Amino acid sequence: MKNFLDNDFLLDSECSKKLFHEFAEDMPICDYHCHLSPKEIYENKPYANISDIWLSGDHYKWRAMRSCGVEEKYCTGDASPKEKFEKFAYTLQYCIGNPLYHWAHIELQRYFNIDTPLNAKTADDIFERANKAMAENDFRPQSLIMRSNVKVVCTTDDPVDDLKYHKLLKNVEGFDCKVLPSFRPDKAVNILAPDFADYIKKLSDVSGVEIKTVSDVKTALCKRADYFNEVGCKVSDQAFDYVPFETAGDDELDEIFEKALNGHSLSVCEADKYRTAVMLCLGEKYHSLGWAMEIHIGAMRNNNSKMFAALGADTGFDSVGDAEIAKNLSRFLDALNSRDALPKTILFNLNDKDNTVLATMLGNFQSSDAQSKIQFGPAWWFLDTMDGMTAQMKSLANLGVLGKFVGMETDSRSFTSYGRHEYFRRIMCSLIGDWIEDGWYAYDEEIVKEIIQGICFNNAINYFNF
Amino acid sequence: MKNFLDNDFLLDSECSKKLFHEFAEDMPICDYHCHLSPKEIYENKPYANISDIWLSGDHYKWRAMRSCGVEEKYCTGDASPKEKFEKFAYTLQYCIGNPLYHWAHIELQRYFNIDTPLNAKTADDIFERANKAMAENDFRPQSLIMRSNVKVVCTTDDPVDDLKYHKLLKNVEGFDCKVLPSFRPDKAVNILAPDFADYIKKLSDVSGVEIKTVSDVKTALCKRADYFNEVGCKVSDQAFDYVPFETAGDDELDEIFEKALNGHSLSVCEADKYRTAVMLCLGEKYHSLGWAMEIHIGAMRNNNSKMFAALGADTGFDSVGDAEIAKNLSRFLDALNSRDALPKTILFNLNDKDNTVLATMLGNFQSSDAQSKIQFGPAWWFLDTMDGMTAQMKSLANLGVLGKFVGMETDSRSFTSYGRHEYFRRIMCSLIGDWIEDGWYAYDEEIVKEIIQGICFNNAINYFNF
Amino acid sequence: MKNFLDNDFLLDSECSKKLFHEFAEDMPICDYHCHLSPKEIYENKPYANISDIWLSGDHYKWRAMRSCGVEEKYCTGDASPKEKFEKFAYTLQYCIGNPLYHWAHIELQRYFNIDTPLNAKTADDIFERANKAMAENDFRPQSLIMRSNVKVVCTTDDPVDDLKYHKLLKNVEGFDCKVLPSFRPDKAVNILAPDFADYIKKLSDVSGVEIKTVSDVKTALCKRADYFNEVGCKVSDQAFDYVPFETAGDDELDEIFEKALNGHSLSVCEADKYRTAVMLCLGEKYHSLGWAMEIHIGAMRNNNSKMFAALGADTGFDSVGDAEIAKNLSRFLDALNSRDALPKTILFNLNDKDNTVLATMLGNFQSSDAQSKIQFGPAWWFLDTMDGMTAQMKSLANLGVLGKFVGMETDSRSFTSYGRHEYFRRIMCSLIGDWIEDGWYAYDEEIVKEIIQGICFNNAINYFNF
Repeated sequence: MKNFLDNDFLLDSECSKKLFHEFAEDMPICDYHCHLSPKEIYENKPYANISDIWLSGDHYKWRAMRSCGVEEKYCTGDASPKEKFEKFAYTLQYCIGNPLYHWAHIELQRYFNIDTPLNAKTADDIFERANKAMAENDFRPQSLIMRSNVKVVCTTDDPVDDLKYHKLLKNVEGFDCKVLPSFRPDKAVNILAPDFADYIKKLSDVSGVEIKTVSDVKTALCKRADYFNEVGCKVSDQAFDYVPFETAGDDELDEIFEKALNGHSLSVCEADKYRTAVMLCLGEKYHSLGWAMEIHIGAMRNNNSKMFAALGADTGFDSVGDAEIAKNLSRFLDALNSRDALPKTILFNLNDKDNTVLATMLGNFQSSDAQSKIQFGPAWWFLDTMDGMTAQMKSLANLGVLGKFVGMETDSRSFTSYGRHEYFRRIMCSLIGDWIEDGWYAYDEEIVKEIIQGICFNNAINYFNF
Repeated sequence: MKNFLDNDFLLDSECSKKLFHEFAEDMPICDYHCHLSPKEIYENKPYANISDIWLSGDHYKWRAMRSCGVEEKYCTGDASPKEKFEKFAYTLQYCIGNPLYHWAHIELQRYFNIDTPLNAKTADDIFERANKAMAENDFRPQSLIMRSNVKVVCTTDDPVDDLKYHKLLKNVEGFDCKVLPSFRPDKAVNILAPDFADYIKKLSDVSGVEIKTVSDVKTALCKRADYFNEVGCKVSDQAFDYVPFETAGDDELDEIFEKALNGHSLSVCEADKYRTAVMLCLGEKYHSLGWAMEIHIGAMRNNNSKMFAALGADTGFDSVGDAEIAKNLSRFLDALNSRDALPKTILFNLNDKDNTVLATMLGNFQSSDAQSKIQFGPAWWFLDTMDGMTAQMKSLANLGVLGKFVGMETDSRSFTSYGRHEYFRRIMCSLIGDWIEDGWYAYDEEIVKEIIQGICFNNAINYFNF
Repeated sequence: MKNFLDNDFLLDSECSKKLFHEFAEDMPICDYHCHLSPKEIYENKPYANISDIWLSGDHYKWRAMRSCGVEEKYCTGDASPKEKFEKFAYTLQYCIGNPLYHWAHIELQRYFNIDTPLNAKTADDIFERANKAMAENDFRPQSLIMRSNVKVVCTTDDPVDDLKYHKLLKNVEGFDCKVLPSFRPDKAVNILAPDFADYIKKLSDVSGVEIKTVSDVKTALCKRADYFNEVGCKVSDQAFDYVPFETAGDDELDEIFEKALNGHSLSVCEADKYRTAVMLCLGEKYHSLGWAMEIHIGAMRNNNSKMFAALGADTGFDSVGDAEIAKNLSRFLDALNSRDALPKTILFNLNDKDNTVLATMLGNFQSSDAQSKIQFGPAWWFLDTMDGMTAQMKSLANLGVLGKFVGMETDSRSFTSYGRHEYFRRIMCSLIGDWIEDGWYAYDEEIVKEIIQGICFNNAINYFNF
């Protein structure tokens, strides 16, 4: 029996070990998509205890706890940090095969220097040791980022954001990591949201554009994109539960927009017409700015109305949808391509049944604009597992060119989650190393090293022009 | 080359062998969903020969035989038992990789004490030896159940059933297995079925409720649920080819219902309105009774009109559908949850493309009502294979909490099919044992034993309150 | 580390090696579906250089090159053969895990006798050695076919084709391979295509049937099918992006047809009515001729409008769709079966999410007409990978009868792509050999040899009656 989580964790073949330890392990991190708070990075406050850093905002952990029958007061409620930690430890022992089990133990080892397995029996001891480690060492955000060897962090920001903390962070001495904004215009696109009209008002105020028509919305968003660009933004992001694609003329669009502003209900088709028009305009803008356009497809959010009313969004009540996506996604990308305005694009899917659709979609729009201009985004959220990552990389390898993959991002809200890059790299080196060990690829040290280090870091730096 | 089907069948690593032989192998069986006949169990008649027990009602075997070009007379027709057995043996030798191959040989070993591989060359000899074993030993239903160490059997029963045999079985001396009914109201829900009006008449008669409105249907079904509850029922079951969810007011529902009773045709949307209303009422009822609600999604039945006309349902002409399910399933569960009336629920899918949808759906509605209140049902029917079971468990492990899984049921019509529990346990111990052997989970004997025996038996007993 | 692409490439267990080297390796090839040109076979012209044979028509390779940022002039443009080869070699080194990597190296070894791995560094040397090999040996189509031990080739032909070259090829001395036409009526079915009316005119001319109604279309197509049958055709083929199934009466069909001929636009539903009617008629015709009906489902073609305008179809801008298929496919097959006119049928899917749907669909319509009358077509196009082929065979093994599988075809446009049969056989022997090695199937040399050689060649010969 191999030791749990030893130095060669997940690495079986000699080649996999070599690839990881010699080529991958020491590469820096480019975290080109996450949900870290630039304010928290800038303010750089210490955490009170391990529950504070681990359990106060992590809906992955809450979901697992609820799945073990743990009461809500130990998840998001007012139980003590120690009680919460005990309930999480109890939960974790049943999470055999779940990435939470690996993430938690990697973080315990790397950040807290604890290699005792966490379970109900060891919970109290580990709670104490972890808190002692936090008291004796610097566990503040900037330190955690630097200890993790992170060179670029792209946060996720609303077009109306003033990016104050991104600007301040440029001048923090001794903090050697670029913290860049990403442009995520979901609220300007989601015309069916109850607060849409309020949002448009805010967008108007911030942009200084009076917004009466869809054309005004586009103008306002483009102005904000220019502002983001000045602050260093190179990435946009969009979340779609499905991919809308309906075309309409300007007059119809303005009628739809006016109905929405006046609080009238819209059909899904009307909403899609608006969404399509705004997204096409934004795609063109991203292209002109040289940005990459990320599209995250397939989350079905806030499924539990009661808990949404009690706790709000991003609290662990989201799941995976199964809408058809191939046709509309193709038409959307083709519409931009036909205008010579298709930006670099990264397609993320949340349902692994769509791997083949996405991995083949890429090939429809590749060009000499960039190396793998259209990218298959790494396995994300629910798919950020050994099986999910392996399936995504196999799909990309089979149907595209794995050697040009921009690799992993954390998509995380936590400063200790950089262990996920290590996790990804072990899995990637295991996959590729086993292939080489089995005689499936001709080993050439120079080429293989370039591929591994490309996927770890270099491909992303080149692709985004960081 | 490992011996075929030896003591360590499917178990490669030392840890897998230990988990199976020390923890899993001797655990009793809780068969919480099957299609055994309570009448046959009660009457406890002997079988004439192995074809009688194996081939007289098994549409899995007929399908395989037809796939080898075997004529219908050897499947459901009037060929002799020996001829049928020969055709099945011929078929089996081509079924490399099919669970039938493993099931048949496990059953030959465990029940008939025959470990000769079955093929065209050995058919006649095995036919003779098996029949000899049946003549010399007790192969009647009750004996087969007890030899298989089965402690609970939940049959599948219509609300109009009088449950006579379940009651009689409570008092059979020396038969140490609870045989409980399950409440399966498909016929009351399937308003588009040609015999719907007849069924409603029968439901009215049996329940003593005059049925003129949808509300009357609900009352009648609730009365029958109460009756089932008295006889010991703790499980309901529902088959959906897709998940309906359309809401409507009472008047509209009653109009739809009246049209159906009068033989007028309904639109799919109208039918879904009725189905939704009845299912929501039933969900509430199950919740109040503390039952678990099983939902089997995705079978496409009776595809071959000619054979359906000749042989009827459940004769081997069903396959797997591919409708979208995520949105309606979420809305249905949320509607019950919003009324504080979501029962314990087990979601079964027949299309493995839906694994990720279901395994993430669970998390939307977990609570402290039960340990993994919403369960991902084990791989079922066409997915009841090594690949299907492994994929389901990996999905649950990745996206939920495998340690709280209620585990296997047979879903079978045959008294020798308890070998499928052994098959499941070998696959489960192989999966988990290999993970531990590879250093992916910290081995703690107490915890691992609890998990393995939980999945084998204890979790189900606790979950259903048997 | 195993040597790259040695004699036991892809074969790990002793049993796999035995199955491949003793049973599979020397079997002839029956290529029952491909896109080779009968004219090129007949004219038998030599190639100028390896770029000519490898890069002049292979959209798989162009896609990979574009994915590495290679400019179009090196793909389909006017760069020199050597420059194109260099760009392809550069691309190939990043294609780790892609079947192109294996295909290219298998072809280099088998046809050019070169076992140096191809990459940017070795490109020029290999370009020279390959061209030298081509100058010194016979690399013409007929020779390549015979060296590859191919006994049957079914090309893909339009009903209006005169089949001149198929006829001529019957009398080429020393060319020991049947080259048979396949009947592919896509253009007569695709009523929404802009050139539909022109095509109907051509069909009328060639068939000598004046075409005014849908019934006339059917008559004309049936006449052409009779002609194809005389020339030796035994296979039809149909490409569907999704499976249409809408029924209509003759009058409505004729109105739809007239609208199409007059250039009026049709709704999708109208188009499906026409398609359904023609396909049902053709299915009956194929049945009466004893042909097999191949259905290729799920390609989404010509997604890039700009490149389609510049280069036309089949240039590397196709991808995989995700439409629902189960219900309509079932109804289509059932409609033919109900008329006692369901031909032997081979179902191919391009989206692996549909594996379970297809592998279970087969079972709905099997009969004693043929051994596995309804076949699950081998993994095709984008799925023609190790993972894709393995998944298809596992699906068929789990849900049907693998031992009766008709096995591989190339679906290719290239005369060196017969290496794909070797690739398939290695993967198939690896899969089955590992199962046997692991004790999952009782080894019986006679039976296993029959199964392996059946899947390699014999099953197809028997199934199609070649």
